[in-house]
Amino acid sequence: MQSLGDSYPSRVAERPAITLRQDPVVWSEPGREVSGPLSDYQIKSYAEQGFLFLPELFSLGEVEALMQEIRRLSTDPAVTTRPECITEPKSGNIRSLFAVHEMSDTFARLAAHPQLAGAARQILASNVYIHQSRVNLKPGFRGEAFYWHSDFETWHVEDGMPRMRALSISLLLTDNNAFNGPLMIVPGSHLKFISCVGKTPENHYQHSLKKQEYGVPDEESITHCVQDGGITAPTGRAGSVLIFDCNVLHGSNANMTPWPRSNVFFVYNSVRNSLTAPYSGQQPRPKFIANRHFEPVPLSADSEPVVA
Amino acid sequence: MQSLGDSYPSRVAERPAITLRQDPVVWSEPGREVSGPLSDYQIKSYAEQGFLFLPELFSLGEVEALMQEIRRLSTDPAVTTRPECITEPKSGNIRSLFAVHEMSDTFARLAAHPQLAGAARQILASNVYIHQSRVNLKPGFRGEAFYWHSDFETWHVEDGMPRMRALSISLLLTDNNAFNGPLMIVPGSHLKFISCVGKTPENHYQHSLKKQEYGVPDEESITHCVQDGGITAPTGRAGSVLIFDCNVLHGSNANMTPWPRSNVFFVYNSVRNSLTAPYSGQQPRPKFIANRHFEPVPLSADSEPVVA
Repeated sequence: MQSLGDSYPSRVAERPAITLRQDPVVWSEPGREVSGPLSDYQIKSYAEQGFLFLPELFSLGEVEALMQEIRRLSTDPAVTTRPECITEPKSGNIRSLFAVHEMSDTFARLAAHPQLAGAARQILASNVYIHQSRVNLKPGFRGEAFYWHSDFETWHVEDGMPRMRALSISLLLTDNNAFNGPLMIVPGSHLKFISCVGKTPENHYQHSLKKQEYGVPDEESITHCVQDGGITAPTGRAGSVLIFDCNVLHGSNANMTPWPRSNVFFVYNSVRNSLTAPYSGQQPRPKFIANRHFEPVPLSADSEPVVA
Repeated sequence: MQSLGDSYPSRVAERPAITLRQDPVVWSEPGREVSGPLSDYQIKSYAEQGFLFLPELFSLGEVEALMQEIRRLSTDPAVTTRPECITEPKSGNIRSLFAVHEMSDTFARLAAHPQLAGAARQILASNVYIHQSRVNLKPGFRGEAFYWHSDFETWHVEDGMPRMRALSISLLLTDNNAFNGPLMIVPGSHLKFISCVGKTPENHYQHSLKKQEYGVPDEESITHCVQDGGITAPTGRAGSVLIFDCNVLHGSNANMTPWPRSNVFFVYNSVRNSLTAPYSGQQPRPKFIANRHFEPVPLSADSEPVVA
């Protein structure tokens, strides 16, 4: 049952709706800012746009070390046989690897990096834990599209995340350009909540519907947001970093170029925003998709290298 | 049967192959140039890259007049019930309208415009006729992708076009940007011919308008061309014009933005390159897809307006 106190009801009404965001984007209070790697200007831009792009924050050497670690994980049967490892139906190639920060010391260190976890703490004004981590390997020619969505809508309804006090940080492992399916963002859309239309919730466990049939914003609401903010696709060299709010509208095109598009994602959630029961009233999703161990990401010294 | 004299065999071998183009790109001989609207610099750039983009060649008023004509055609049952009119299976909305220059005086005048037919004559160094004309209406949210291909490969195999002495001119009827599925081109790829694998079944055009299965270049050959020339997507305001060679590798992404992407295409073929029997040995495709009336596009006075 949807709680009466739910600030962001979705998938319960017969018609979609847009409401205003009930939460801050940057959670630190004036005069009580949390220190971190981002400048005042960057914080202000993030608050307004819902994302921040940091070109070439990591070196190509660091990126190559991460790719090596992915190759190691990808050939380890103890990894590839786990449910965290999502392979392509036809080729058997790995498409996504979840919970990488739990499988690999390298990625655990990366998740705690002061430029990443530090930025998350600075924006969310608290300790943070990893709600989800993931390596995406979008291959050339066959990388699939991902339709417009708000992450928060899903995390709220399906995972029980109460408030908009979470963000994603994506580190590009390959060059991203306009053609190989970069993340497209609707700037400013994070300030509105698009309530999606529900699909017979009482029966839905009986159907094996595709995931993206749920939590899909309606075209009118997307059009409204795009009329306001346009569309942008931050692109850049491998090693660049994209920070984006949990509620910003985003999606990506298919990749029909020969160029793969790979990245590593960390979702940081505030420890003061840890998960409750899913607002849908249904069973929680698996832990590797929605972590329920709310242990803070450890502080990492600035001098510690990403890759040992 | 594939003729022994076929310069561009395709869909006959079990393995793909890349061969060199056997024909000029710009057909006029030095000292015997055909006059036209393009400068020497533009002609040289076209010869090297395989395309030429002319930003905002037509005014927004002219574009609006063309859109009005499309709306008129789209609501005329004498048009919408013809096979030239391709509708979307679900919505019934028009996706493509072929042979528009035969259905509409406005589009007949546009096809004969000195900036369009004149450029085609200048590049192909002869009179030209319309091999195919088409209005494409790629809607927002649901515009489909079109995979990499060479037009010539299809026109040669399925329509019996002997040589690479044809080109397409696309007039943008909506703004094209990086996100709404613009044409992606591999510069320089027009100088190579990718021989595709697989035999074409009879009547395949009925499906190929919806889904590509034949005449699809292999990934290795595409990668080879992209390594050489990269990928570019000429974008610009409505009224802009793209001229591209019949053999340049191109494709387009799906359009998941709210912004529609519409254009009008004319394929000009040299009257000295008129169609023979299809090189596949199969039945020719319908006349509205591969015109077999090789009447030259009439010369049009510069002063004549596109839209009466």
